[in-house]
Amino acid sequence: MKASLDCIPCLVRQSLEMARMVTTDAVIHERILREVLSWAVKMDMGQPPPVMAQRIHRKLCRITGAEDPYREAKAAQNRMAMRILGELESEIDALDDPLITAARIAIAGNVIDMGINGDVTVSNIKASIAKALTVPLVGDQINFIKAAGRAEKIFYLCDNAGEIVFDSLLIKALGPSRVTAVVRGAPILNDATLADAISTGLDQIVEVMDNGSDAPGTLLDDCSDKFRQGFMAADLIIAKGQGNFETLSDVSGPVFFLFQAKCPVIANHAGVPLQSHVIKTFAGEEK
Amino acid sequence: MKASLDCIPCLVRQSLEMARMVTTDAVIHERILREVLSWAVKMDMGQPPPVMAQRIHRKLCRITGAEDPYREAKAAQNRMAMRILGELESEIDALDDPLITAARIAIAGNVIDMGINGDVTVSNIKASIAKALTVPLVGDQINFIKAAGRAEKIFYLCDNAGEIVFDSLLIKALGPSRVTAVVRGAPILNDATLADAISTGLDQIVEVMDNGSDAPGTLLDDCSDKFRQGFMAADLIIAKGQGNFETLSDVSGPVFFLFQAKCPVIANHAGVPLQSHVIKTFAGEEK
Repeated sequence: MKASLDCIPCLVRQSLEMARMVTTDAVIHERILREVLSWAVKMDMGQPPPVMAQRIHRKLCRITGAEDPYREAKAAQNRMAMRILGELESEIDALDDPLITAARIAIAGNVIDMGINGDVTVSNIKASIAKALTVPLVGDQINFIKAAGRAEKIFYLCDNAGEIVFDSLLIKALGPSRVTAVVRGAPILNDATLADAISTGLDQIVEVMDNGSDAPGTLLDDCSDKFRQGFMAADLIIAKGQGNFETLSDVSGPVFFLFQAKCPVIANHAGVPLQSHVIKTFAGEEK
Repeated sequence: MKASLDCIPCLVRQSLEMARMVTTDAVIHERILREVLSWAVKMDMGQPPPVMAQRIHRKLCRITGAEDPYREAKAAQNRMAMRILGELESEIDALDDPLITAARIAIAGNVIDMGINGDVTVSNIKASIAKALTVPLVGDQINFIKAAGRAEKIFYLCDNAGEIVFDSLLIKALGPSRVTAVVRGAPILNDATLADAISTGLDQIVEVMDNGSDAPGTLLDDCSDKFRQGFMAADLIIAKGQGNFETLSDVSGPVFFLFQAKCPVIANHAGVPLQSHVIKTFAGEEK
């Protein structure tokens, strides 16, 4: 997905949020903001927006010496999600359609986005999940069930810390033996990395690999050869979150995107209503 | 009030909205956005944010040849506000405290902001007013009543089209003979100008002048000598809306700001909760 003009003010805002997460030094906040603005003046609108976020994050880490500025936030998100996990598993067992219920909860995990702002509480995660269990899923749910039924190799592209705890339910419902879960190759925002997979026990459930990239999405050219080989060999790719959608929506392949459409530009590109809970594919053979 | 780093992404977003209001030409949208970004790289953070908005608006008008891009929007806002006026006047007559009730409704007019987005309807204006009649006013209400009681020359700085219709109620409650209502000196966004004062009949109720400036606020150095003389001679200045607050909050004088705190930076500067309905003064003698 190409960037829209609307992405620019949003990226500028995010860069300021990012700078404040990395350091309390107001001089650096201003420096990074002005630098981002000067990049944005020349920004290539043919690139997906996560390319810019990746660049900002790298710059911030270079300036401040921080290696993983969101480490504590991610750890807190993981802990909170794990607290809720037990209750969810019993709910799934009690429902008629475990696959779609698990998909709904995995999307709920994305809805929450586990709050960079730190305003996510156990009670509002629970409320989000309760809502996610009942709202209509927009998109290609039937084709997703079919594709999941016949797939032999499933590549599951994770998104954020915390959210990966909810992903584990869907991975279990799919059957972990045919799934490879993929996390980011290096710290970027609150996106899940191998450290999160290990601390939440995801690696005990399913094979986990990283994609070799520090983009908040999946830029194939930026990923490792091993990742690309796995991506090509998979007959079902489940891509969580807006970042994976932004970076993979123009890639041909058996990709199903599971996310909440939190951004109007993305909702428009996906052809879904804003705020909807989406299972979407562009794979021709599934249409 | 100086700009905050948070003002920059907001100004970038506003410039895009402004460009879309002025023309449907996407090439111009991108051109103005990149130009604004390049200004923002060097932006003087010591200036209040309306200075930047003024500059963007001028540039857009120069590029497109538009003289008053918001003319139709303003006319629609005025018509809608006038439709509601009759009902409001009877409500005010029925209430105990006509001055504060009228002030509340004038603030409601600012709450509505009469939607650059065009999503303002008669029913949600009425809902906003109903709410404004009951929410606590934050700030210096008692001092406002005192100042209004003893003032001989009142300068009433208007904000938006549509909103000025509600201002007329407060001007009537104050007693129009001692009031001069001031509108912007040239079209800027949906701010009220002399044309709006005439089409809504405000000029039939009170003396109206313009301030000689096309800023979406009151930049004293940019205003006419006549305006500055009136400003200095007034013993009560009522400044409506966030733009007037941003530009006059550091000016000494008997100024009362009436607005809704819609922006976190402004709310913080005013020392009031976000979304609160505010009557605020920094005038030492009123404290």
